[in-house]
Amino acid sequence: MSAKSIILKKRNGNALSSAEIEFFVRGSMNGTIPEYQITAWLMAIFFQKMTREEAAALTRAMIDSGERIPPPAQTEADRPASVDGPSYRSVDKHSTGGVGDKISFLVAPLAAAAGAKVPMISGRSLGHTGGTLDKLESIPDFRTQMSPEEFAVCVRDLGFAMAGQTENMVPADRLYYSLRDSASIVESIPLITASILSKKVAEGAESLVLDVKVGSGAFMESVGAARELAEWLVETASVLGVPSRALLTNMNRVLGRTAGNALEVAESVLALRGGPDSAAEDIRELTLAIGGAMLELAGIEPDANLARERIAEIWQSGSGWEKFRQVVDRHGGDVRVIDDPSLLPRATSFLEVPAPSNGVFLGLSARPVGDWITESGGGRLKTSDTIDPVVGVESLVEIGSSLELGTPLVRLHLPEGKHDLEVLRERAASWIEIGTEPPLPRWIDTVGV
Amino acid sequence: MSAKSIILKKRNGNALSSAEIEFFVRGSMNGTIPEYQITAWLMAIFFQKMTREEAAALTRAMIDSGERIPPPAQTEADRPASVDGPSYRSVDKHSTGGVGDKISFLVAPLAAAAGAKVPMISGRSLGHTGGTLDKLESIPDFRTQMSPEEFAVCVRDLGFAMAGQTENMVPADRLYYSLRDSASIVESIPLITASILSKKVAEGAESLVLDVKVGSGAFMESVGAARELAEWLVETASVLGVPSRALLTNMNRVLGRTAGNALEVAESVLALRGGPDSAAEDIRELTLAIGGAMLELAGIEPDANLARERIAEIWQSGSGWEKFRQVVDRHGGDVRVIDDPSLLPRATSFLEVPAPSNGVFLGLSARPVGDWITESGGGRLKTSDTIDPVVGVESLVEIGSSLELGTPLVRLHLPEGKHDLEVLRERAASWIEIGTEPPLPRWIDTVGV
Repeated sequence: MSAKSIILKKRNGNALSSAEIEFFVRGSMNGTIPEYQITAWLMAIFFQKMTREEAAALTRAMIDSGERIPPPAQTEADRPASVDGPSYRSVDKHSTGGVGDKISFLVAPLAAAAGAKVPMISGRSLGHTGGTLDKLESIPDFRTQMSPEEFAVCVRDLGFAMAGQTENMVPADRLYYSLRDSASIVESIPLITASILSKKVAEGAESLVLDVKVGSGAFMESVGAARELAEWLVETASVLGVPSRALLTNMNRVLGRTAGNALEVAESVLALRGGPDSAAEDIRELTLAIGGAMLELAGIEPDANLARERIAEIWQSGSGWEKFRQVVDRHGGDVRVIDDPSLLPRATSFLEVPAPSNGVFLGLSARPVGDWITESGGGRLKTSDTIDPVVGVESLVEIGSSLELGTPLVRLHLPEGKHDLEVLRERAASWIEIGTEPPLPRWIDTVGV
Repeated sequence: MSAKSIILKKRNGNALSSAEIEFFVRGSMNGTIPEYQITAWLMAIFFQKMTREEAAALTRAMIDSGERIPPPAQTEADRPASVDGPSYRSVDKHSTGGVGDKISFLVAPLAAAAGAKVPMISGRSLGHTGGTLDKLESIPDFRTQMSPEEFAVCVRDLGFAMAGQTENMVPADRLYYSLRDSASIVESIPLITASILSKKVAEGAESLVLDVKVGSGAFMESVGAARELAEWLVETASVLGVPSRALLTNMNRVLGRTAGNALEVAESVLALRGGPDSAAEDIRELTLAIGGAMLELAGIEPDANLARERIAEIWQSGSGWEKFRQVVDRHGGDVRVIDDPSLLPRATSFLEVPAPSNGVFLGLSARPVGDWITESGGGRLKTSDTIDPVVGVESLVEIGSSLELGTPLVRLHLPEGKHDLEVLRERAASWIEIGTEPPLPRWIDTVGV
């Protein structure tokens, strides 16, 4: 067995054995396979694809490249009394990335408050899409780096934690992702699948709800492409013994009322405290759908309706907000901003843009909003960029409501510095989508159990 | 312009501009483009191919990565009096590699004796195929390394030289070839085309005869694949302003009477001295065809028939042998072995294998003969291997002649060491091809001017 022969086999369109994939990943990490062979292999995979079994073997080999956090709640003592033992599993939720996507801040504490164990390793903003860790860091003193031990204890004690990947977790993913990024090999569905699943399984997730975003604000712009990724994720997870479900959800428009780091934390905290009726319509829809799916997969509720009702009850009770506050405290974050989100970092200059016509407000076009936030310092063009937490965009009117020409509609939270407000106003006006009927629900379809 | 965006463009199937290709090759050589981007790019080219214009731009950029030997015979003084000035060009011949392929040793001195300038940069054995430089080094003291100045002077004075590529000539080809070899990206027709043509143009060839081998003993096993390579070579050379012609020739069976380094030099020297009638039928056929094409392309003879007659006359006169002797002398080689080839290195143990049946002798299967020679030390499995010049295989009967069961037919020239002669005899017997009618000519088809 040699790296060269394995590259050749894949280049010629043949499926690799698990032993070959393990050999390649191990060699990539111990330095016996140089980077120029790794990128040749990854590019061959880009063109020749993989089977589900190969993707599962790649995921396993990548997990084995580093340390693993054991799944939480393995003991009888950890199990909620109401839950049937054998079907009780830890559960995580993953989004493929969008604009204004703050669903993790709602579903993780709500599922944890219902008794689920949610070990949530999160990422940073990338391109036009936001990142959970960057958003959390708008909470003063919040530490997103936890040791695997701290992380495991936080999940055990409080039901969830939201930290960054440690240096020693899935190092093969870090190496492969950086090479794929530099060598234009990112858009490979088997490689994306292995990258996502390896991190989730290594963090201790025993089941998985996947929010596969589709539309102009997502990485997958067509339903067909998103469905293909969803099927890959669900079927590969199945080979790995991880029950999962993927929801295809619309990402053409900003999700909820805000996009931007501190703004999204504020919207989430207010929604958690205010209950389902206080949240934006689309946030309520996806929180109930995704949170419900998490309780089902975790074995806490036996069917979709009961799970959804359970999430709604817990949300209404305020115990999700309480759970979020505890976890912020455990991460070292300043809980005063959870009690009063107006204390979060906030811009000092704003620009309001009025409705350009009468009609029904459909939302803000996600991609250009994400691009403006990124350009303005609220996201990253390269991984070394720092984040300005105050930059963001806020809708002043609920999606689906009727507009009159001139009603204040969008508020931009501006970074420090000079702005050509006339140009900016025109640019922001172009993000506004107005129609004659309310928009369709976000949730398009479901793949998996 | 960035390496990443150029890889992406090619990965997505778009044609690159000359500026993009130059940028990539320059960056590969000055260290600003790391090897992991180079192999990703080469693998993307493997899958997405190139246009002829891209291959020509790649060839030019690779030539520009190093030093170039100016084409010889640029002055009036150099031009033979019989030759019309403007159409007089230097000419080289290239073979894609075979077993027993010694045609260069005949056509280079014959064309030079007819007034052509033949700057011949040659290669070493690779896999089951032989290499001109390795064969030449079976001549005691022959130096295959010449400085560009020595090389140019030798071509100017004697009409041809046969040396290895210098360190500074087409270094991009050396880098790319070594990465392609390590990362299983060898079998790409545009990359093979650029590799061959860059070396030929950099050495000063103004026109080119290509012997594209086809069959089980060649890199291209089917006529279709060989024709594709031939068309690529001829059409890309045309974009570069280098008139060329490719002959597709059969490489299913060993060419001539011998395969092996010293054996092939001996066969060539005897054939050069003995004239056309002394040579094996297939050697005569290809020497007249390829040597004739060289005289035509060099502008020395106006048509194929005259060119072929001219080569035959010169061959008959013995002046080709005299030319070869001069060049060996110039390279420092011991000319006593040219006067008496029995002085060349020679094995001390042999194995003779008889004809296994009656019939017409068609030849020896090229691939297994090449493999046996390589395994036995006469070729290279890796570039650092050293060569045993005496190892080889000799046919004792002319191709096309009738055999009787038991007639001594094949003689193996064995390396030092132990041999299981019974096993070896069986193995060699399996190389023998016997039919009922003489084989077809070697020359299958022609591509180009």
